[in-house]
Amino acid sequence: MLVAIVGGGQLGQMLAVAGIPLGHRFRVLDPAPDAPAGRVCELIVGAYDDPEALARLADGADVVTYEFENVPVDALRSLAGRVPVLPSPTSLEATQDRLREKEVFAQVGLAVPPFATVDSAGELREALTHTGLPAVVKTRRLGYDGKGQAVIRAPHDVEPAWRALGGAPAIAESLVDLRRELSIVAVRDRHGACAFYPLAENVHRDGILRVTRAPADVTPALEAQIQGHARAVMEHLDHVGVLAIELFDTGEGLLANEMAPRVHNTGHWTIEGAETSQFENHVRAITGMPLGPTDAIGHSAMVNLIGVVPDPTALAAAGGAHLHLYGKEPRPGRKLGHVTVRSDSVERTRDVTLKVEALATDAL
Amino acid sequence: MLVAIVGGGQLGQMLAVAGIPLGHRFRVLDPAPDAPAGRVCELIVGAYDDPEALARLADGADVVTYEFENVPVDALRSLAGRVPVLPSPTSLEATQDRLREKEVFAQVGLAVPPFATVDSAGELREALTHTGLPAVVKTRRLGYDGKGQAVIRAPHDVEPAWRALGGAPAIAESLVDLRRELSIVAVRDRHGACAFYPLAENVHRDGILRVTRAPADVTPALEAQIQGHARAVMEHLDHVGVLAIELFDTGEGLLANEMAPRVHNTGHWTIEGAETSQFENHVRAITGMPLGPTDAIGHSAMVNLIGVVPDPTALAAAGGAHLHLYGKEPRPGRKLGHVTVRSDSVERTRDVTLKVEALATDAL
Repeated sequence: MLVAIVGGGQLGQMLAVAGIPLGHRFRVLDPAPDAPAGRVCELIVGAYDDPEALARLADGADVVTYEFENVPVDALRSLAGRVPVLPSPTSLEATQDRLREKEVFAQVGLAVPPFATVDSAGELREALTHTGLPAVVKTRRLGYDGKGQAVIRAPHDVEPAWRALGGAPAIAESLVDLRRELSIVAVRDRHGACAFYPLAENVHRDGILRVTRAPADVTPALEAQIQGHARAVMEHLDHVGVLAIELFDTGEGLLANEMAPRVHNTGHWTIEGAETSQFENHVRAITGMPLGPTDAIGHSAMVNLIGVVPDPTALAAAGGAHLHLYGKEPRPGRKLGHVTVRSDSVERTRDVTLKVEALATDAL
Repeated sequence: MLVAIVGGGQLGQMLAVAGIPLGHRFRVLDPAPDAPAGRVCELIVGAYDDPEALARLADGADVVTYEFENVPVDALRSLAGRVPVLPSPTSLEATQDRLREKEVFAQVGLAVPPFATVDSAGELREALTHTGLPAVVKTRRLGYDGKGQAVIRAPHDVEPAWRALGGAPAIAESLVDLRRELSIVAVRDRHGACAFYPLAENVHRDGILRVTRAPADVTPALEAQIQGHARAVMEHLDHVGVLAIELFDTGEGLLANEMAPRVHNTGHWTIEGAETSQFENHVRAITGMPLGPTDAIGHSAMVNLIGVVPDPTALAAAGGAHLHLYGKEPRPGRKLGHVTVRSDSVERTRDVTLKVEALATDAL
């Protein structure tokens, strides 16, 4: 099959690399002529909402997918009449708007932090009586990697926070006192079969994911509970492909944070750490192939490389570190790649990961 | 770095896929406009001995390598003055000629079956008094996948065998009564550091590799012995990159069969079954990066797909089968892809592999 991907970043690249051995061909659309995925498949340079570029992307494709959720829904709907778009524009729409997202969580019984929609500084001030302090205000749309967010610790933070968001429609929610952040990467195929990767534990700093460890140390009951929620979300949306949900573990229960209708940074460890990677399973799902097993192989950790690439010799000396570079020009705060550590022992994975984190520290 | 590969088949493709995440770029030269590696990197269409095509391949490259050994040595030597060619033309030359190959084995103390060089039907007849019957006669150059070979079971086979080989310079050797075939995939980096994958056990049929199982069930002493021989061969040749040696286990000792100065079909299992794949380690070696660990992860088997591709649904039902298709048009006897089975248990890997072999049986 010819698989067309809106977005030619590292996720598109890893999808193509995983899907080519399954017999598929890939084509990506990206505004950047040096988009990472262009290294491994056909690249159409164009804007995501350019009808002519989208038409070229979809021309002859058997399925269209996307590697990030800030794609114009209307653009995808316009294609969906001609070629299957998976995950469907419904999934995309539900994850583009933080309010709609919370409604879906509510519908499947996933708790969320106390929140309120806010459209003005006045409404934001009022919302704080509901959320309490500290709170975080987030634009309803187009947020990623901590962008479009501001923390409010005291009443005098309201005006600067509102200005920082540019006055866009937003949501205010309680800043949860969390014990840890968890995520689940789930996948559903065209026939409705679901599979779930083991829960991962994530460390964010400045809104950007730094480290993922998997499988997370959770009880089987908690794992089963979250799998049930993820299944319910996917069935509610008739989702096909990978879906990732980020959760806050408060120590007294779980609160859903957000979800993404695509392969996810907290699932990169699956390339080495699981029987089948999230990338292969996303391609399997959307092309109508059966899913591969999602079992973990030993214990893994993934360290994002933000702004700087560690020396390969030092990385090799750390022991068993798998390097994934995205071919991007280094720039402060930019995700340039990631490193996966995998071993059969929790302790060894932890020790090597600490060394890798130290090597990636210049980047912080 | 820009890595240039002579040959754009599946080996070139898997080298590129393994090396791109290390930050390298790839360019391949192949006479076929639909060469597999052309799916994932730049493809120059041209003959391997076309000076103009070779110059374009090497233009701006940091290192030149090759994915098969039937490359004209002179062509590579002509490049070696301008850009490092690794493994060096010396390695290539030593593996292109079965006589030279046997001389290298002899120099490092690796036993070979009784043999004699033959240049005529008369010499072949005479050689049989030394090798005994049955014997096999092989052209000294340009043999692969059982091509350029003929078996002699009785004196009246001599004339047809000699005609079948077209009268090319050849070697006659005893057809060994072997218990099993083994191979070792070894790798040596630019600084002389060596690493060795666990021995693999191989099943050939009609001269074509069908199944590889790894790690093979061998004693640590045997493993160490073969590693020592492989190290000696690599040091003797000042080899940089992967080198594979095929061996016959007669039950009373080992006899070297042949070697290849490149990534090898009996090492494909390392993509899923080892910490670092043979492809990544070849790229690491020739680009001056440190080698990655070569430890096996559980028990693996690889089944070649010859002529026919099994149904993906049936393959998935077999459990944990990793599909690698090369994007070639199906044709009888053609290697179209391979399937790797990996699990933590010998028994499970064996059981799933039997199912995969049954699904690939139509191809035999």
